[in-house]
Amino acid sequence: MALIVQKFGGTSVGSVERIRNVARRVAKWRAAGHSIVVVPSAMAGETNRLIALAREIQPQPDRRELDVVASTGEQVTIGLLSMALIELGLKARSYTGWQVKVQTDSAHAKARIVAIEHERLRHDLAEGYVAVVAGFQGIDTQGNITTLGRGGSDTSAVALAAALKADECQIYTDVDGVYTTDPRIVPQARRLKTVTFEEMLEMASLGSKVLQIRAVEFAGKYRVRLRVLSSLTDPMLPVAEEAEAGTLITFEDDPTMVMEKAVISGVAFNRDEAKITVHDVPDRPGVAYAILGPIAEANIDVDVIVQNVGHDGMTDLSFTVNRADCARAMKILKEQVQPHIKCREVSGDEKIAKLSLVGLGMRSHVGIASQMFRTLAEEGINIQMITTSEIKISVVIDEKYLELAVRVLHNAFELERE
Amino acid sequence: MALIVQKFGGTSVGSVERIRNVARRVAKWRAAGHSIVVVPSAMAGETNRLIALAREIQPQPDRRELDVVASTGEQVTIGLLSMALIELGLKARSYTGWQVKVQTDSAHAKARIVAIEHERLRHDLAEGYVAVVAGFQGIDTQGNITTLGRGGSDTSAVALAAALKADECQIYTDVDGVYTTDPRIVPQARRLKTVTFEEMLEMASLGSKVLQIRAVEFAGKYRVRLRVLSSLTDPMLPVAEEAEAGTLITFEDDPTMVMEKAVISGVAFNRDEAKITVHDVPDRPGVAYAILGPIAEANIDVDVIVQNVGHDGMTDLSFTVNRADCARAMKILKEQVQPHIKCREVSGDEKIAKLSLVGLGMRSHVGIASQMFRTLAEEGINIQMITTSEIKISVVIDEKYLELAVRVLHNAFELERE
Repeated sequence: MALIVQKFGGTSVGSVERIRNVARRVAKWRAAGHSIVVVPSAMAGETNRLIALAREIQPQPDRRELDVVASTGEQVTIGLLSMALIELGLKARSYTGWQVKVQTDSAHAKARIVAIEHERLRHDLAEGYVAVVAGFQGIDTQGNITTLGRGGSDTSAVALAAALKADECQIYTDVDGVYTTDPRIVPQARRLKTVTFEEMLEMASLGSKVLQIRAVEFAGKYRVRLRVLSSLTDPMLPVAEEAEAGTLITFEDDPTMVMEKAVISGVAFNRDEAKITVHDVPDRPGVAYAILGPIAEANIDVDVIVQNVGHDGMTDLSFTVNRADCARAMKILKEQVQPHIKCREVSGDEKIAKLSLVGLGMRSHVGIASQMFRTLAEEGINIQMITTSEIKISVVIDEKYLELAVRVLHNAFELERE
Repeated sequence: MALIVQKFGGTSVGSVERIRNVARRVAKWRAAGHSIVVVPSAMAGETNRLIALAREIQPQPDRRELDVVASTGEQVTIGLLSMALIELGLKARSYTGWQVKVQTDSAHAKARIVAIEHERLRHDLAEGYVAVVAGFQGIDTQGNITTLGRGGSDTSAVALAAALKADECQIYTDVDGVYTTDPRIVPQARRLKTVTFEEMLEMASLGSKVLQIRAVEFAGKYRVRLRVLSSLTDPMLPVAEEAEAGTLITFEDDPTMVMEKAVISGVAFNRDEAKITVHDVPDRPGVAYAILGPIAEANIDVDVIVQNVGHDGMTDLSFTVNRADCARAMKILKEQVQPHIKCREVSGDEKIAKLSLVGLGMRSHVGIASQMFRTLAEEGINIQMITTSEIKISVVIDEKYLELAVRVLHNAFELERE
């Protein structure tokens, strides 16, 4: 049948009882005839405990040694989960990153996977073993232990699926899929049965925290079908029903993609940003660089950037940064930039929110933007900034209108309907 | 200067503060110009915690997977200790068993070291690094993680010292050396500055729990000088004083061996045994096997065996077993053995103790045994069994006289004197 990689997060393996439930779930898929590779995270809280211990010894822990310590969390889980599977009567075997081996570069704590040797896994899978592989870890060319950074187990799972050419990579988490918007704001929000990688990437970058954006990029690049599933459902739910209860992230040309795809997939939003505007700067070449260069040098990420046509040789330039970086960015602009470019004023606004409509269908449907703007205008919501991409329209608005805006847009585009 | 392997037990690395103290101690030896390999155990309690977790999942944990889980304890310690050394300004680097690599057989949970690749360690030591190597663990030829069994870190340290041809292997523990007898029984008991491997092996097998007997055997076989030191002394004690404060276990021909070696090194004892006697068995070939064969088949270890000359074609055979095995051994003898060999009676006595004088000097001094027996007789202590080896005389006596016997022998042979 199929070869499936299943990834379980720290909460899903957070106790002995939960590890047993994961084992039951894996056994069910195995019983349905599939070959299974399982990638568990460390037990919830364990990685934090280990890092805290390291910081007690060394406030800025040596990066190589921190990886040696932190990688033990996943090593414990793979051993325990293998035992739980063996206890259920299955053949199971655990693999650390170096046993697989998962070859990475040497960037400790944020290593990137370079290659995966999969001969031994293939051999054991062919013999009927469930392969239980430690996520989050690898080995560099000098034989040092590396870790992929927080959330790296998602990336490990996708990379394994790519290397093994698995039919599907299933990410079990504490939500049951990707929604048209946050159900806490719009109770009618609907779980998407399918979504494309392009849409998922836009939604992840806009603050939908279902999956690590790096894992989604990786899956898209290597054409790995991703399925988000809930680890909170009954472990004995039949496999067909379990798969139906999640969201499949795949390619536009995937035959299982829902045929009558909606124009808009979802309304995403982000409250973590602040807006900075530099007023009345001379409208001449090099000004954008003069403003944003010092910001980049200070390692401050800039998200939306908007500059409109000038008037009387002057223009305004606005951009958004992470809210935590706003004060620092303002200081740089006022002290280092303003004296040189002779702008009139630098202003900051932390009470903004970014809101986006995302959907592949935008490419072929006109009028989406105008319908969006009209809907917001009818509620008296002023739009401060607008940016667009091929499959997304983002606006920056006053934060206090965010919930209202999400609700009216969700309703206007009838996202609650299948 | 010298190449020294230093092993620290679980109590010595049981907390962040204690790990810092170990780092200070290592730094001190490094500052004295020595090359250092450190072998720490898991933090006290950690191995038990991991095994308990495994048993919750699987009452009889899969042995391969248990080693995957249990070996993480030492992996955490090597990372933390390396950080503590780096924090003190030293160059330090950790190595797991597979990174060294420590090649073992595949007997999970009780693996034996087959070979140690030491090129990388040598290279790093030459560059001035302190090498921090995980004890208790290795890797088999298939790349599986193995552990050496409880107390295996002592063996790891000795094996590394042998492979690297180290000048000395220092075992830091919570006692400060090997004593002429247990100081809790004889307050005048004296710490031995030197003791030979042969003597140490006899004393270890008789219940002196300072070192793992396997590590002592290993050190003797590969001619590794062993030094037992206390990890409870001031970490800043000068190195010469620190070395003097322990016990050196070495070879008779070691030039540093104390010249005027005493005849007797110590009085060792063991309260964990029980005595079983088979009375009036026919004195003919094959009887000893008929009695002890079924005991061995039941995996019961037999220690002392005594059979005296017979009388009227009959003899008695006595032997000692671990006290916990006594009831089982008695049952086997009464049900399986007695009906065949037609002995008169099988009796057991759990209230015995074994007591031994150990000393290389016995080989060249006559009269030790008779002085021992006279001393015990003067106190009215009856001797139930006697066995001798070249450097040891053991007697089995009533357990209630044990402390008295140890005290009078310690006194009679003037063991408190240098």
